[in-house]
This record gives sequence, structure tokens and C-alpha cells, in this order.
Amino acid sequence: MSASKCWQLQSIPLTLNRIEGVYPVRPPLPAVGGYEGVGEVLSVGSAVKHFSPGDWVIPSPPSSGMWQTYTVKEESVWHKISKDSPVEYAATITVNPLTSLRMLQDFVTLNSGDCIVQNGATSIVGQCIIQLARLRGIHSINIIRDRAGSDEAKEMLKRLGADEVFTESQLEVKNIKDLLTNLPEPALGFNCVGGNSASLVLKFLRHGGTMVTYGGMSKKPITVSTSSFIFKDLSLRGFWLQKLMNPDKVNESRNMIDHLLCLAREGKLKYEMELVSFDDFSYGIG
Amino acid sequence: MSASKCWQLQSIPLTLNRIEGVYPVRPPLPAVGGYEGVGEVLSVGSAVKHFSPGDWVIPSPPSSGMWQTYTVKEESVWHKISKDSPVEYAATITVNPLTSLRMLQDFVTLNSGDCIVQNGATSIVGQCIIQLARLRGIHSINIIRDRAGSDEAKEMLKRLGADEVFTESQLEVKNIKDLLTNLPEPALGFNCVGGNSASLVLKFLRHGGTMVTYGGMSKKPITVSTSSFIFKDLSLRGFWLQKLMNPDKVNESRNMIDHLLCLAREGKLKYEMELVSFDDFSYGIG
Repeated sequence: MSASKCWQLQSIPLTLNRIEGVYPVRPPLPAVGGYEGVGEVLSVGSAVKHFSPGDWVIPSPPSSGMWQTYTVKEESVWHKISKDSPVEYAATITVNPLTSLRMLQDFVTLNSGDCIVQNGATSIVGQCIIQLARLRGIHSINIIRDRAGSDEAKEMLKRLGADEVFTESQLEVKNIKDLLTNLPEPALGFNCVGGNSASLVLKFLRHGGTMVTYGGMSKKPITVSTSSFIFKDLSLRGFWLQKLMNPDKVNESRNMIDHLLCLAREGKLKYEMELVSFDDFSYGIG
Repeated sequence: MSASKCWQLQSIPLTLNRIEGVYPVRPPLPAVGGYEGVGEVLSVGSAVKHFSPGDWVIPSPPSSGMWQTYTVKEESVWHKISKDSPVEYAATITVNPLTSLRMLQDFVTLNSGDCIVQNGATSIVGQCIIQLARLRGIHSINIIRDRAGSDEAKEMLKRLGADEVFTESQLEVKNIKDLLTNLPEPALGFNCVGGNSASLVLKFLRHGGTMVTYGGMSKKPITVSTSSFIFKDLSLRGFWLQKLMNPDKVNESRNMIDHLLCLAREGKLKYEMELVSFDDFSYGIG
């Protein structure tokens, strides 16, 4: 094996939650942290068919133990990607952007001109949802926390294509929908916060709408009125990428990853990241 | 028109909520209360094709203004039923029993040997769910309030076919599922109470299960943890009979009503009622 320079990044909440042990799926101990990243193939075993030294690979589905300089894993773990992929996107594409793409596809049929609503809109998933929706002509209503810098966050999200961005306190009004003039009521909402912020997503949804929960950053539960279910006919669902790790879903997800990396190469998918560089960081395939 | 003796009953919570105006669908005022009942046809207009004097009819979909001795309505409002139907069942079949039958069919595909869980199990909907499930070989776990007479209520529900009946206080244990020995985890739950009682339904549900809310007798909202959506993959939905009032659903519902009345005639569907008799109470068709 030879050394090479590679990027290794990851979804921070996901990675830390796994280390904390709050995820119901845990690796046998002792275990190495890290859940996504990109590596260069250094050497392959004699039975390996689809990879050669020099290839770039990512673990797909995301795989435990990526906080390592070198690693040896089964061929089936890896997905070969184009070497002209931006390395920081290759290292971060398998969790958050894939979550965004799947959530826009898997729950409600959306058409150009439709609208979605989400909280936690400054998260990487949130940023990707805005852009992936916009590419399909779908509008987005975005809810962010009240905090120092919220004006800059609004501008950043609008540059990505957000139609509307509100802080939670802006939404403390009786008729929340009076704030929207030219947008249709959203059929689909995304919640990664819980508590009052989830209630705001529910208020925006149209009759028969669906809210998908994929995170709980406030650590508060979701509270829903009876009438939301009976008279407004809302559906509440959940999304967990882990569900897509069974073999029949892997190929579909890898195709989606290729599509996302293509968008990243073309500059159509961007998200803010803090980068960390590791020297001598690479993967091998056994 | 001539007088005849008929029964007029109704779903009390539904009828009273409508009079209180808490339902989002309201008749033009002044209006007559009452939402279901059975009547005898006294006379028909010249354009009426499907009814003759002496026929028994029920409003299907349920229709406002049934608290009247005589009424004149369009032919399309009425559904002719078999005159050997037990009158107290004919007068109460269109709301609660139909709700039970639809909720067992419309959300999750259940097979013989499967299991459902519900709160508010002593309600008429609850009693019907137990029996309609049992007729399909589906087990039921039932949750009732702690109150004087709860032992008698348990016995009553078990006579109807309930597999398990628990009061809410019996379920204040860490591992709720340790109470079940021979039953599979339920894929479908029904909630007509809200608050803690809804949380108990959620606790019983299996991974990927669905809870359908059709009432909120405690007037408390439903509170759900983030992990219930993400890791347990629960879905929360709502049921409202009003949705089934569009013309393309009416025939389906009328077929289901005929099926339910057939079960009532055969003694396979029973529920506890308090009866009120009105003299000179009947309907006409204009």
C-alpha cells in the first residue's frame, strides 16, 4: 500500500450520535468512528473485479470506521466515483445530500410549481433540499432559528434558491399563511428540529399534507392536535437512511449519488462545509 | 303523509360536536340537529325511481337534520335497507360501525393472525373494531380508562372477542410488551383519546406501524418522540368519515353498510346502545 492525500469529512450530528451510542445500530466494540469519506484505492485482492489502484471510492451505504488512514474492506462496501468529483463533496455525499434527494422523492409526488416547507433550513440537508427542489421547479419555505447572524443565513439560503426564509419568531402570528402571497400551500414538509419548530411546519402544510421527520435537534418531541389528523388529514412519517441499506436499495442509492456528484461538479449543488485535511489518508480494498 | 313509529339514534359525540359548531363543516342556519337515523318512506315525488312508500331508508352519507318527525329530501340522500334489519342498528350504522370497518381496511393490509391495538375501546367504534377484526382472525389489544366499572367493561369487551383489555394504569410499566405473551406486535393502532392514551397505543405498535386518529375525547394533543418516527418508522394518520362523502365513495360505503347490517342481523355485530323511541317519526322523499 502506498500513501496518498485524501479528504475525510462526515455528517457531524450523525457521527457524534453514533459515538454517543444513541443510534439503535451499533458496531461491535472496540470500533473506529466515522461514517463517510472518500479514499483512493491502493491495492486490491485477487478476487476483486471492479476496482484498480488509483480509483476513487466512497462507502455506499455509509459504513462505520472511516476515521482511519488506511482500511481494508470487502469490495461490496465501495462505490467507485468519477475522479473529477470535487473531493469535499465526494466525502460528504452519501448521508446528507442523499437524504435530501430521497426525502423529496419517497413520500409525496411533487410537480413543478408545487411547494415544500422545512425547518432547520441552514443544515446541509436543508441547503440541499432548497437546491434540489429548485432544480425541479419546486418552491421552498424555510424556517430558521432566531440567532445572531440570521440575516446572513437568510441571504445565504436565498442565494441557494430559497423562495421564503423566516425565523421562528417571525411566525408567531395568528394567520401564518398571510405571510405567503404567491406560493401554493405546501404538500410536503421536513422536520429536523421538533418542538415548536415542528408545529410551525405543520401549520404551513396544506390539507392532506405530509410532514417527514428526519432529526430532532431541539431534543423536544412533536406535538400534534387531534384536528390536524382528522380535519386537516395530515400524515406524519419518518425518514432514516439506514432503511435504505438493504441490498435491493443499494444500487438505486448509488445511482442517486452519481447524480448528486454530477450536480456538484456542475456547480448546481453547493453547501457550506468546514474542511479538515488529513495527510496519508486512504482506503484499500481486500 | 302518514305517521309511523321509527327509531332515531345517533353518534352522540359527533352530533353534539356538530351542534357546538366545532366541526369545520356546518349547515346553513337555522338548522335541525341529528345526523343519522332510519325512516319509513311515506310518499315519493313523480321523478323518484328507486323508492316506494313503506321502504326503510337511512341517510347515506349521514345527513344533517335528522332530528325531525317528517322530512323531505332528494332521492340521492337515501339508501334503502332491508326491512328485517334490527331498527336500532339501522339507525346507527352509518357513522360508528362504518368508521370501524373503513379504518380496518383503508390504512394497512391486515391478514388473519395479525393484531391491532386501540384506546377508547368501550366506544361503539371500539366495540365494532373488536368484532370486525375477530371475524377476520385479527387479534385486538384494547385500552380503557381507569374508572368504576372497569372490570365489567373488560368482561363486556372480552365477550365481544377482545384478546386483551388493559386499563391505562396497568400500562404504567417499563416494558409494555412484556404484558403480551402470545400476540404479535400490532401493525395498526386506533386513537380516539389523545394525550397519554395515544402514547400507549404508539408504544404497542411494531416497527413500521401506523396509528390512525379518529377522535380526541381527552381534548389533549398527541405527543410523539422524534425516534418514534426515525428509528421505529411509525406513521401517524387521521380518519374522518366526511372524506368519504364525495360521490365516487358513496356506493362503496353503501355496500359496506349493507354488509354491516347483514352482520347485525346475524348477531355477529353487536354494540351497547341506549335507545330513545319517538312516535310519529319518519322520513319522506321529495
